[in-house]
Amino acid sequence: MAEHLSREDCLARDAADPLRALRDQFTLPEGVIYLDGNSLGVLPAAAAARAADVVQREWGEGLIRSWNTAGWITLPQRVGDKIGRLVGARPGEVVVADSTSVNLYKVLSAALEIARADRPGRRVILSERSNFPTDLYIAQSLAAQHGCELELASADQIARRLDERVAVLMLTQVNYRTGAIHDMAALSAQAHRVGALALWDLAHSAGAIPVDLHGGEAGDTAWEVSQAADFAIGCGYKYLNGGPGAPAFLWVHPRHVDRFRQPLSGWMGHASPFTFDTGYQPAAGVARYLCGTPPVIGMSVLECGVDTLLAAEPLGGMAALRAKSLALSDLFLAQVEARCAGHGLRSVTPAERARRGSQVSLACATAPGYAVMQALIERGVIGDFRAGDGSADEPDLLRFGFTPLYTRHVDVYDAVTALADILASGQWREARFNQKATVT
Amino acid sequence: MAEHLSREDCLARDAADPLRALRDQFTLPEGVIYLDGNSLGVLPAAAAARAADVVQREWGEGLIRSWNTAGWITLPQRVGDKIGRLVGARPGEVVVADSTSVNLYKVLSAALEIARADRPGRRVILSERSNFPTDLYIAQSLAAQHGCELELASADQIARRLDERVAVLMLTQVNYRTGAIHDMAALSAQAHRVGALALWDLAHSAGAIPVDLHGGEAGDTAWEVSQAADFAIGCGYKYLNGGPGAPAFLWVHPRHVDRFRQPLSGWMGHASPFTFDTGYQPAAGVARYLCGTPPVIGMSVLECGVDTLLAAEPLGGMAALRAKSLALSDLFLAQVEARCAGHGLRSVTPAERARRGSQVSLACATAPGYAVMQALIERGVIGDFRAGDGSADEPDLLRFGFTPLYTRHVDVYDAVTALADILASGQWREARFNQKATVT
Repeated sequence: MAEHLSREDCLARDAADPLRALRDQFTLPEGVIYLDGNSLGVLPAAAAARAADVVQREWGEGLIRSWNTAGWITLPQRVGDKIGRLVGARPGEVVVADSTSVNLYKVLSAALEIARADRPGRRVILSERSNFPTDLYIAQSLAAQHGCELELASADQIARRLDERVAVLMLTQVNYRTGAIHDMAALSAQAHRVGALALWDLAHSAGAIPVDLHGGEAGDTAWEVSQAADFAIGCGYKYLNGGPGAPAFLWVHPRHVDRFRQPLSGWMGHASPFTFDTGYQPAAGVARYLCGTPPVIGMSVLECGVDTLLAAEPLGGMAALRAKSLALSDLFLAQVEARCAGHGLRSVTPAERARRGSQVSLACATAPGYAVMQALIERGVIGDFRAGDGSADEPDLLRFGFTPLYTRHVDVYDAVTALADILASGQWREARFNQKATVT
Repeated sequence: MAEHLSREDCLARDAADPLRALRDQFTLPEGVIYLDGNSLGVLPAAAAARAADVVQREWGEGLIRSWNTAGWITLPQRVGDKIGRLVGARPGEVVVADSTSVNLYKVLSAALEIARADRPGRRVILSERSNFPTDLYIAQSLAAQHGCELELASADQIARRLDERVAVLMLTQVNYRTGAIHDMAALSAQAHRVGALALWDLAHSAGAIPVDLHGGEAGDTAWEVSQAADFAIGCGYKYLNGGPGAPAFLWVHPRHVDRFRQPLSGWMGHASPFTFDTGYQPAAGVARYLCGTPPVIGMSVLECGVDTLLAAEPLGGMAALRAKSLALSDLFLAQVEARCAGHGLRSVTPAERARRGSQVSLACATAPGYAVMQALIERGVIGDFRAGDGSADEPDLLRFGFTPLYTRHVDVYDAVTALADILASGQWREARFNQKATVT
C-alpha cells in the first residue's frame, strides 16, 4: 500500500522505474522539487542548444534564406504532427499556432458556423462553470457575436444539460482546479446523438494523459454515433514543456476541416500565401487555421519539449507515463492522509483513478492556502495556489502537478514531508506574500 | 553627386558616418551584403545571450517564479513602451502581442464597432489595392462579419475615394512592393474631416522612418481636425530586428482605447486575470487588447532588436537614421542609373525623398527578376523578389532594403557592382530556382 511507503521505499521505486532515464532529458535546478509542470513545464536540456542554434545559425547566418533552408515555413505542421502523436490525431491534422485563446476563437467560430448551417436555431454553447476563464471569455465574445448564449453548468450537470438546444459543447478535458477528467468519448458521443458538436481544450491533458481525439473510430463511422471529438485546442507550455508562453496547437476533425473558414484569415492560412493574391482563398485542410507568420524561435523550442514526450514511445508512450503519473498521485494522496492528518487538508481531486488527471489539489481548513504554498515555495517545493470564490464549492486550493517525465517518488515523499512540517510547525505564518501572478 | 561616387568615396563616407558604430550591435555573416532587413532584420549580437539567459536562467532555474521575478508578466507593456518611442506613442499606449494579422483583427474590429456607434450606416473599409495581402484578408473577413465592404483603390486614388461613405481608412504607411510612403498626417486628418477613422499598419515604417502617431497634436485637439492616427499595428521582425516571426505590436489612440472591447477577449486582456473570474471584464487602457499568455522568449529577443534602434537616440534617433537611409537609397538609385544602363531596370520607388521608404524596388525589362535575384543571392547579395500580376501596373520586382543601422555605403556600391555584372554577363541564366517562399 502506498501509504506505508518509507522514503527508502520511494528511492527503491525510483531505482526500479523503467521511465527513470527520461528525467535526464531535463535541466532541473538544484534544491527544487517542482510540482508545477501543469502550469509551466521544466526546461528540456536540448532546448538551450536548440534556441542558440535557431538564433545564431538559422537566423544570424541563414537570415531570410532559412525560411526555406531551415524549414521554418513548415514548422507549424512539423511540430503539429508530433503533438498529434500524443493526442490520437493523424498526420496532417494538427497545426501549431498562436495562443490557446486565439486558437479557441478560431475553432469555436468554425463550430458555430457549422452548427448554424446544420442545425439552425440552436443558440447554446454549453460549458463548465469552472472551465479555465480564458475559454469562457472567448466563448462570451463569440456568443455575443453569433447571437448565442453561453450556458454554464457544474461538472456533474453537463451530461444532463446536453440536449437538443446545444450547438456546441465546449469543455476542458481536465479541470485546471480539481484535476477531474471529463469522459471525452462518452460526452462527444452524447453530443453527437443530440446533434451538437464537441470542442475540447486539452491544456491539462496533452502530454498528461492518453488522449484519443478520434475516439477509436475506424473508417467512416457515422457522426451521430461517433465518439470522436470535433475540434480541439491545447497549450504548449504545460505538460508539453514548450517554454513560457509557447505557441499553442489546434486540431479539427477531417469531416469539418474544409467546410468553413475561420475568421482570423491571415496570409499563412491562404491557399497560396506567396502569390500575394488580393483575395483570400483558404488553404485545404487544417492549414486554413493558420493566421500570421509563425513564431520560429518559440516553435523550435516547443519542438524540444514535445520530443521529451515522444522519447517515451519506446518505453510505452503515454500509457506508461499515465501509469507512473497515477502511481505518483496515489502516493501523494496516501502520504498526505498518513502524515498530514489533523490539519484539515481535503483533496478535491477525484480518488477514482480514471477520473483523475495528472495533478492533486488540496483544500486546507486550518491555514490559508496561499501562505502554505508560499512557505512550501520558500523551501523549494514548488506547486501553486488557486484562489476559490469563498464558497464551499470552490475553496482555495493548493495545486500539485505530477509530471512523470521528471518527477520521482522521492520528490513526492519529500514534498509531503515539507507540507507536514509547515502545517505542524505553523511556519506558514511567516511566509512572505510576494506572489503577484502565476500563469496557469 | 551620389552618381559619381567611387568605391573609395563610399568607404570614405562610411568612415565619416556618425552612425557607423551602431553596426557593431549586430552579428552579420561573412561574405553577405544583406539588403532584406525590410523582410527579416539581422541578428542583434545581444539577442543570442538574451535568449540563452531567458531559456537557461529565467525558465530553467526560475521556472514558474519568473512570471514575477523576471518580469515576464509585464513584457507586453515594457517592450511596447520601447516601440512607442520609435513611433510617436506615449508611455502606456503600445502593447506587444500576437502577430500583425491577429492584431489587425483586434483593432479593425474595434474601429468598426466605433464607426457603427458614431456613424451608423457607414459600410466601407477603404484600403489600397496593393496593400500587403494579409491586411486585405483580415479586412475581408471582418467586412463580411460586420456587413461592410472592402473597397480597394490605387495609391493615388485613395484621397479621392475618402468620403462620407467610409467607416475606416486602413492603410499600410509604406507600401511593401514599391516602398512608397502615404502621408499619414494628411490622410488621417482628411479621414477625420469626413468622419472616418484612420488605421495604419506600420510594418514597413516602424524603425524605418520617423513616425508620429499623435500627429503633432497638443492636448485636446478636436478629433475632426486632428492629424493623429486612430489605430496602428506593426511588425516585430522587419526593421525592429526582433527575429523570425517575432511578436507584433499595436497602438490605440487614448480617445478610443476604453470605448470598445476587441473580440479576442482572452484572459491577459481581463481587468484582473488572476482572480479567475467567470465573466470577462476588459482591462482599462490598451491592456484590453492582449489575449493569451505572452510568448516570453520571442518578446525578450524582440526587446534586443528594439534596443538596437533606441541606441541611436543619443545620435539623433530616427531622424538621423532616416537621413542615412535616404543617403543609401539615393546612392543605390544613382549607381544603378550610372552603372546598369541598357538593361531595362526601372525603379518603381518614388524618386521624391519625402515619399520614399527605406527600400528601392526595381522592375527589369530584359531579364526575369526572379532569376536575377537568385543570381544576386548566390553571390551573397541578399534582397528579395516580389512577383507582380503580369500587368504593367504591377510588374515583378527586385526589392532592396536599406537598413541604416547596419548597411554601409560600400555595401550599396558592391551590390550594384554585382547587379551590373549579373545583367551584363547574363549570369542570371544559370541561377538555381530554389526559392520557394520568403516571408515579407
